[in-house]
Amino acid sequence: MRRYKEDDGAPFRAVSRQVLFSDPRLMGELRYFEVAPGGYSTLERHEHMHAVMILSGEGSALVGPTVHAVKPHDLITIAPWAWHQFRAAQNEKLGFLCLVDAARDRPQLPTPEDLAALRADPAVAGFLDGEDAADQGEQG
Amino acid sequence: MRRYKEDDGAPFRAVSRQVLFSDPRLMGELRYFEVAPGGYSTLERHEHMHAVMILSGEGSALVGPTVHAVKPHDLITIAPWAWHQFRAAQNEKLGFLCLVDAARDRPQLPTPEDLAALRADPAVAGFLDGEDAADQGEQG
Repeated sequence: MRRYKEDDGAPFRAVSRQVLFSDPRLMGELRYFEVAPGGYSTLERHEHMHAVMILSGEGSALVGPTVHAVKPHDLITIAPWAWHQFRAAQNEKLGFLCLVDAARDRPQLPTPEDLAALRADPAVAGFLDGEDAADQGEQG
Repeated sequence: MRRYKEDDGAPFRAVSRQVLFSDPRLMGELRYFEVAPGGYSTLERHEHMHAVMILSGEGSALVGPTVHAVKPHDLITIAPWAWHQFRAAQNEKLGFLCLVDAARDRPQLPTPEDLAALRADPAVAGFLDGEDAADQGEQG
């Protein structure tokens, strides 16, 4: 296990990542992310897809323009170039699996203009400010 | 969800399969298998790899020449051409995720000679006869 992106300055908090399967004989990779209460993954987008299965805990996910409350066994497809971020609830960690292609492009971070466009939706602005999805009503 | 290989006559019992993620934009596929108490998946081998994560329950797995007791969060790599079968305990279901390449070869079933070679090991013979791993002592 290692701290998630600890060395690149991207904006995240309290996330760990474990690579469960990565093998030259396999086209996919499976990783496990765990976000501590109040923590969040980097807000980013890229060409490659994510296929996510929530394993434990509670939180919310921004996928494209929409905030979803997430719970164990939820399946989340993150399409190419969709902005995405995962946040644990304030009082609960969030654990999830993420399947990706082994060969994939690097993520892009949002520009100030991208962030302003996302924040035009109050539900997204609340998500980015760390308000629990439960406090905003069910978004998913 | 559908019954696992219900239409091809392969030797299995009480297994269901759900495809969680299969997408033309993704090189891997993620499936969820659930084996009812006393049930088992098909004994088979193939060129493609399996990357398995146990999610729930209890059981045992034959991987190549070795029987392993398995429990939640165990990670199991099944190398190309390794014989493999999953069995739930007699009194407990077994649920697991399996990552494969989307493009993959068809499984081979054992010949009588293959089965005789596997059965030469008493631990493997006990596994194939449905004796719980716990009854044989810890094999994993």
